[in-house]
Amino acid sequence: MTILIKGGTVVNATGTVDADVLVDGERIVAVLAPGSESLGSDAGAADKVIDASGKYVIPGGIDAHTHMQLPFGGTEACDTFETGTTAAAWGGTTSIIDFAVQKYGERVEDGLAAWHEKADGNCAIDYGFHQIIGGVDDESLKAMEGLIDEGITSYKLFMAYPGVFYSDDAQILRAMQKARETGLLTMMHAENGPAIDVLAAQLAESGKTAPYYHGIARAWQMEEEATHRAIMLADVTEAPLYIVHMSAKQAVAQVAWARDNGKNVFGETCPQYLYLSLEKNLGAKSDEWGDFEGAKWVCSTPLRSEEEGHLEAMWQGLRTNDLQMVSTDHCPFCMKDQKELGRDDFRAIPNGIGSIEHRVDLLYQGVVDGRISLPRWVELISTTPARMFGLYGRKGVIQPGADADIVVYDPNGHTSIGVGKTHHMAMDHSAWEGFEIDGHVDVTISRGAVLVEDGEFRGTKGHGRFLKRDLTQYLV
Amino acid sequence: MTILIKGGTVVNATGTVDADVLVDGERIVAVLAPGSESLGSDAGAADKVIDASGKYVIPGGIDAHTHMQLPFGGTEACDTFETGTTAAAWGGTTSIIDFAVQKYGERVEDGLAAWHEKADGNCAIDYGFHQIIGGVDDESLKAMEGLIDEGITSYKLFMAYPGVFYSDDAQILRAMQKARETGLLTMMHAENGPAIDVLAAQLAESGKTAPYYHGIARAWQMEEEATHRAIMLADVTEAPLYIVHMSAKQAVAQVAWARDNGKNVFGETCPQYLYLSLEKNLGAKSDEWGDFEGAKWVCSTPLRSEEEGHLEAMWQGLRTNDLQMVSTDHCPFCMKDQKELGRDDFRAIPNGIGSIEHRVDLLYQGVVDGRISLPRWVELISTTPARMFGLYGRKGVIQPGADADIVVYDPNGHTSIGVGKTHHMAMDHSAWEGFEIDGHVDVTISRGAVLVEDGEFRGTKGHGRFLKRDLTQYLV
Amino acid sequence: MTILIKGGTVVNATGTVDADVLVDGERIVAVLAPGSESLGSDAGAADKVIDASGKYVIPGGIDAHTHMQLPFGGTEACDTFETGTTAAAWGGTTSIIDFAVQKYGERVEDGLAAWHEKADGNCAIDYGFHQIIGGVDDESLKAMEGLIDEGITSYKLFMAYPGVFYSDDAQILRAMQKARETGLLTMMHAENGPAIDVLAAQLAESGKTAPYYHGIARAWQMEEEATHRAIMLADVTEAPLYIVHMSAKQAVAQVAWARDNGKNVFGETCPQYLYLSLEKNLGAKSDEWGDFEGAKWVCSTPLRSEEEGHLEAMWQGLRTNDLQMVSTDHCPFCMKDQKELGRDDFRAIPNGIGSIEHRVDLLYQGVVDGRISLPRWVELISTTPARMFGLYGRKGVIQPGADADIVVYDPNGHTSIGVGKTHHMAMDHSAWEGFEIDGHVDVTISRGAVLVEDGEFRGTKGHGRFLKRDLTQYLV
Amino acid sequence: MTILIKGGTVVNATGTVDADVLVDGERIVAVLAPGSESLGSDAGAADKVIDASGKYVIPGGIDAHTHMQLPFGGTEACDTFETGTTAAAWGGTTSIIDFAVQKYGERVEDGLAAWHEKADGNCAIDYGFHQIIGGVDDESLKAMEGLIDEGITSYKLFMAYPGVFYSDDAQILRAMQKARETGLLTMMHAENGPAIDVLAAQLAESGKTAPYYHGIARAWQMEEEATHRAIMLADVTEAPLYIVHMSAKQAVAQVAWARDNGKNVFGETCPQYLYLSLEKNLGAKSDEWGDFEGAKWVCSTPLRSEEEGHLEAMWQGLRTNDLQMVSTDHCPFCMKDQKELGRDDFRAIPNGIGSIEHRVDLLYQGVVDGRISLPRWVELISTTPARMFGLYGRKGVIQPGADADIVVYDPNGHTSIGVGKTHHMAMDHSAWEGFEIDGHVDVTISRGAVLVEDGEFRGTKGHGRFLKRDLTQYLV
Repeated sequence: MTILIKGGTVVNATGTVDADVLVDGERIVAVLAPGSESLGSDAGAADKVIDASGKYVIPGGIDAHTHMQLPFGGTEACDTFETGTTAAAWGGTTSIIDFAVQKYGERVEDGLAAWHEKADGNCAIDYGFHQIIGGVDDESLKAMEGLIDEGITSYKLFMAYPGVFYSDDAQILRAMQKARETGLLTMMHAENGPAIDVLAAQLAESGKTAPYYHGIARAWQMEEEATHRAIMLADVTEAPLYIVHMSAKQAVAQVAWARDNGKNVFGETCPQYLYLSLEKNLGAKSDEWGDFEGAKWVCSTPLRSEEEGHLEAMWQGLRTNDLQMVSTDHCPFCMKDQKELGRDDFRAIPNGIGSIEHRVDLLYQGVVDGRISLPRWVELISTTPARMFGLYGRKGVIQPGADADIVVYDPNGHTSIGVGKTHHMAMDHSAWEGFEIDGHVDVTISRGAVLVEDGEFRGTKGHGRFLKRDLTQYLV
Repeated sequence: MTILIKGGTVVNATGTVDADVLVDGERIVAVLAPGSESLGSDAGAADKVIDASGKYVIPGGIDAHTHMQLPFGGTEACDTFETGTTAAAWGGTTSIIDFAVQKYGERVEDGLAAWHEKADGNCAIDYGFHQIIGGVDDESLKAMEGLIDEGITSYKLFMAYPGVFYSDDAQILRAMQKARETGLLTMMHAENGPAIDVLAAQLAESGKTAPYYHGIARAWQMEEEATHRAIMLADVTEAPLYIVHMSAKQAVAQVAWARDNGKNVFGETCPQYLYLSLEKNLGAKSDEWGDFEGAKWVCSTPLRSEEEGHLEAMWQGLRTNDLQMVSTDHCPFCMKDQKELGRDDFRAIPNGIGSIEHRVDLLYQGVVDGRISLPRWVELISTTPARMFGLYGRKGVIQPGADADIVVYDPNGHTSIGVGKTHHMAMDHSAWEGFEIDGHVDVTISRGAVLVEDGEFRGTKGHGRFLKRDLTQYLV
Repeated sequence: MTILIKGGTVVNATGTVDADVLVDGERIVAVLAPGSESLGSDAGAADKVIDASGKYVIPGGIDAHTHMQLPFGGTEACDTFETGTTAAAWGGTTSIIDFAVQKYGERVEDGLAAWHEKADGNCAIDYGFHQIIGGVDDESLKAMEGLIDEGITSYKLFMAYPGVFYSDDAQILRAMQKARETGLLTMMHAENGPAIDVLAAQLAESGKTAPYYHGIARAWQMEEEATHRAIMLADVTEAPLYIVHMSAKQAVAQVAWARDNGKNVFGETCPQYLYLSLEKNLGAKSDEWGDFEGAKWVCSTPLRSEEEGHLEAMWQGLRTNDLQMVSTDHCPFCMKDQKELGRDDFRAIPNGIGSIEHRVDLLYQGVVDGRISLPRWVELISTTPARMFGLYGRKGVIQPGADADIVVYDPNGHTSIGVGKTHHMAMDHSAWEGFEIDGHVDVTISRGAVLVEDGEFRGTKGHGRFLKRDLTQYLV
Repeated sequence: MTILIKGGTVVNATGTVDADVLVDGERIVAVLAPGSESLGSDAGAADKVIDASGKYVIPGGIDAHTHMQLPFGGTEACDTFETGTTAAAWGGTTSIIDFAVQKYGERVEDGLAAWHEKADGNCAIDYGFHQIIGGVDDESLKAMEGLIDEGITSYKLFMAYPGVFYSDDAQILRAMQKARETGLLTMMHAENGPAIDVLAAQLAESGKTAPYYHGIARAWQMEEEATHRAIMLADVTEAPLYIVHMSAKQAVAQVAWARDNGKNVFGETCPQYLYLSLEKNLGAKSDEWGDFEGAKWVCSTPLRSEEEGHLEAMWQGLRTNDLQMVSTDHCPFCMKDQKELGRDDFRAIPNGIGSIEHRVDLLYQGVVDGRISLPRWVELISTTPARMFGLYGRKGVIQPGADADIVVYDPNGHTSIGVGKTHHMAMDHSAWEGFEIDGHVDVTISRGAVLVEDGEFRGTKGHGRFLKRDLTQYLV
């Protein structure tokens, strides 16, 4: 089957061009100057023609940081691979990279197998895995060597969550040495967990148990410090480093410093750190901090103070390329029975916000607001994620030979976010309730299959395939 | 006429893809997955097929900083638009942007008209102009407003050369305000000329007249200072800023600082600052500094000390994107009758090095040496120059609709640089004598016309057209 | 005549000690452990005993930046050497260093002679001179060589005020070279005058003529830029550098950067930049910026925005020693007939604030407010000024052999500043009206003579002598 | 008994003065202008007159970092309090602050009592203690509260040595909170011990067992990282921080950054980091790194590369006051039976160098070499240590009321360091063998008692008293 996407403006990471895109089967086979499809009989006779006049034709979004069905804090993230990837497709995202989990005492291979089991046959879009290494020891280090053959070319360590995922500096060093040796990319949750846990316990013990104090306990110094530490441990091992979900301006300054000095250090932020804040979300819903609505926005790293300039600094980081990517850290928990676990103590609130459906839109709003350029939008949501995680060529670009993962985006459309409006995720609330977007995902195509069109979901849960990824293509 | 470039690896700024490229007339009309040209009758029946198997297919180089026939120091740069653009084509460059000159006391319009006259009908490849404003006053400020309609969307000021091109800070501020108002991009020669002239005079008067002292007089502090000053003047006017021919690591640090703070500040370096040095070229040819061979490498900013790390810092700047572009500052003077003017006093040596023919090769060597990636090579020599100076879409990318400015580059070829080897520039010497490149420009195509193929030049001097440029497309 | 100051706490720059101080004639002859004066017959039988119980005994203040009788903007600073030094004594300052002026076209020797004539026989306290070099040329450079023998070991250049005091970068470089050669300390008014004049003219021409726009025209970028430029020009000449009257946090950051890199760069701020602000003083007195009361606080560098953190940054600079001194830049003009000259155009308002009487008190308030320590107070107002300008040993410390310049300061006293309260300066208003200080200058002694005691002035205008200064004693 | 030190130049931290110093009993009672002692009968009739003509009279040195009789690595530092303090007196040091040790599982009070027992009655000079907290828990935190009453106002934590003294970040945070609450000053051994131990084990296991590898394992990144981490943990608690024995330029840069931002962060270096290096001492004695002589200079932090600029950076830090103090970290081990323990594995070499006898001289050489000024010398070796650790007034300054801890230093004398020359420490070698100093300690006086004079030691081991210290006097 062939599809001709006609009359649109193709947006790639370096600029735009008016061109038609011809899809044959699962792949893009030609990008054509407008009108020149007549040169090819196939193009002229495509099975299906999509009129993209006045619209943007972009590579499908890649969300490189999601946590479907993640066990956390005694419960489990409420989106399944099916619901999560379906919501993704609604929002113009055609690939995710989820985190397979190895905990201390478990075998890496077993953790990975469990994740395959959860995802296999259930995804509406393509999916890859990073591997969480929750217990660095001789055995897991050995197991890391095998990951690349499995198409898992990146793994994550945690400087937070002692007793759960936490690695100490000796463990981090050894893992980074292994990464340097194998080519695996090290992803880091950079917060000083042991120190945070002291602060959190002191707050809770003094009666400061409301969600607001989650943000206070996880002070920016804790993120800045861990970021710097990770950079120096990476430096001594000469391993590249990718810091996930950054929210503190001082931590971004550390990444900028490393990059100015030529180090392969990368930073990711998330939509919540661009739009939501300590003042507005963790506390401002009520006169007293005790209000529990803030639990919806309890995530780690935490939402930070807008007054102190953290949000503005995240946008600036995206402009300066000190932050290279925006992922969601999609980690959805319902209020009922889940977030509620922490009603009496913020420490028991499952950490996470769900945004997988809205990332492409929320970043597009940054274009409308004059914060980033149109090519930068595509670079942030698709091209760099592809390059960073070894998918470029197949994903992340509109070019012949690439998978036909394509979104037709209407800059004259409109999207109202909220439960009962556009919300296909499993949470019983939306962290983005009331956000209005000056644009709209019209069509989502995944490997040549139209998943979303005319406001309807036409995909199937088994369509998505596991992505064996190459090594990162982003190093200099 | 149609051309099919078949079997190659297309390299764009974000990555590579195996694809065929179909040219129809002056434009690229399709980029096709290998083998899929059978889908189009035209593609299948191209008038000419170029076999690019095992080779890179890249957008033609854009050299955004050249000075053909520039009057300077009582003589004139020895490459005409014909010889210079012909040499460019040999070296894989298909567009230049030269500097039209307005001097103090002259009308901008007259200076521009004179430049058109020099170039018109003489160029082998396409050419655009920046405008030098050598005398900022009410009249020239008014004239700046008209430049954009002429397709001149950038202009250059000099903080050096008092009495020739120099603008004082009041003039710079006023010009930048005009740039902010009109969208013109300000290019800056950032060296503190008044201070340099004092140092140079003191050296010359104390008998230190050899070429080496050119480098001593133009101390790095003079470049760093002017760079910082230009940044702050731009900051107060909110005008974007582009610093030309950077060579001092401390100056690049200033650009990095500005960029970290979100300012639209850009930096260009040149091949000579990546490979040639104060020690090797300005002095090391003889035991006594009096040797005059160093005159070949007298340019401004000057070659800097390799020991102090300047060369390494330029490569790092290219990696970190604190430097975005590599142009040549091609400003060719012969030794005989030209450089020789300064035999008794380095201040009388015409400033300039000619590299237009070798830029694409010299940067490719950086890929071979592991200093930059393949996509970064294309970004530096073509894509960013196009975006920076308003040519993107037409130039700087292999995509349908773009001008068919294409180079087939052979990574298994070899190029020996030197007079009598590959040297089509008018100088009686080569600044790059003896350099060996592990690659080769096989084919150069300009707007569908094959200029270089099979080791022969097949272009014509009238082929190149004037490029009316859009505003810069590189701002965030 | 001998004086014994008994029972007080001597405060020096490194700490405090309970000790008695014995003065014989013009000098301190002994510092004695309490009670041990009985060991000396002279001490036991002092002609005069001052009870300093519960009070601080500190070296007399040194105000290293004053402008008595300065011709400026068509009028003349209204404090004579008599009125100014008398007010100084009231406020605990026992030495000033005023600026002798050479303007372009005048001989340095004549400018200096004129200043001696103004001061000779008229000062209540000791006085020295810096030399303003308003026109750097061969003749004035030659004259600089003679200054040291005259006891003038520092000179000032201006990067502001084109056409009045302004030096261009070539002139600055040459003067700094001379300073490096002779040991003279270069003081710099660091603002980019040519650029400021453009901005100021544009504001005035667009009808923005109120005092507020003085602060807008002299944007922080203009101070930051000039500071950086001065640092780099000093760096290339290896001359030490002292930046006067700093007010912009970004400029202080430049000094901090230079100092971190081991350069002999020093920064001075003034009380007005610690307490007064753009919002409160240049504009906030009225709903409309047109109000002219702001003229009282028109000075250069200008008062800056408190909201943007400049005031806080000045205090921080004092804590971090990135700023080493607080002088007044005492430059008093009356509103009537003087400031009024600029009623229709802020550019015509004579620049200057008078604070000579209040500096010691205003800085002491910083001790009360917890901003600086007691020893740091003494270091800022007396010890460092003495070391910086070659007076240490004679001035700036309570130790035997030093001039008996001593202030008894009562931490339990109180000082209300304002016209009709404590205001002995010649201005018809006080820039500090309404300030309340939690301390009081009880006794001021200059070379053994009691100038102020029991709320009375007992000095005489001819008492003060010219100070021939040594080279700076502050270099590392 | 009274002593008059006559005719010398008194050097204090802010400058010099020609003055006589009168001692009565244990204290200085007067500082007198030369010749004015006639004013006092006692002074004129001093029991003893020391002629200091042409010499410097300085406050006795304070060595704030020593480890007498420290159990470490299965052996014990070989200087007793008697031998160590005697050697100190020979070298012009009149006070030490040694480290009492609490190890994990021990009571703080017991550790302190043990230290009192070692020192009591055995010291030739005054001594104070810092408290090492080797196991932060509820009990030791409680014990910290009692330290101030004991005159122990500072304590040390270790980020190195896991399993021995190591504290993790949670422990550090809690201890700093206690410090903030009580006023205790936190001293930090800032090296990332867990990571270092991995690197060291890998080196040793690969056969790289020579002393040289001690320096390689303890890479500068490990010191820089820990320094940054300590700064941020201190920042979140608002506790002042003192980093001990700094040797890496990048770590000093971190301290400079903290200080630029107004934080109370201090840095100490040691003579070995100013003069000795990785190249010269840890490896250069033999063609093969296997040579064991390098063991003499195995200390932590390690000696660093001179080529990389670390030594120069330490001197610069002393000039810029980013380093405030020079202590010895005197931790003496003999080669025989002690250093030899690590002949087969550098990890078993007891860490430490002995310098207590030479610090005053070695720093004076910095004055001779033009690296620091004379007042800065006194500030570094005596005044700041006194202020930093709550001894100022009693110690650290020549002023009435202060303890008569005085050194007469002869700038025309000479000192040859080495075993059999000037070496009164217990080590069987000198780390400073062959160093020549252009100056000499002529007389050392401690609380009025002459300990060293005429090349003889006249002190007694019981003379030294325990110093109950006040809180730090150095905060801003």
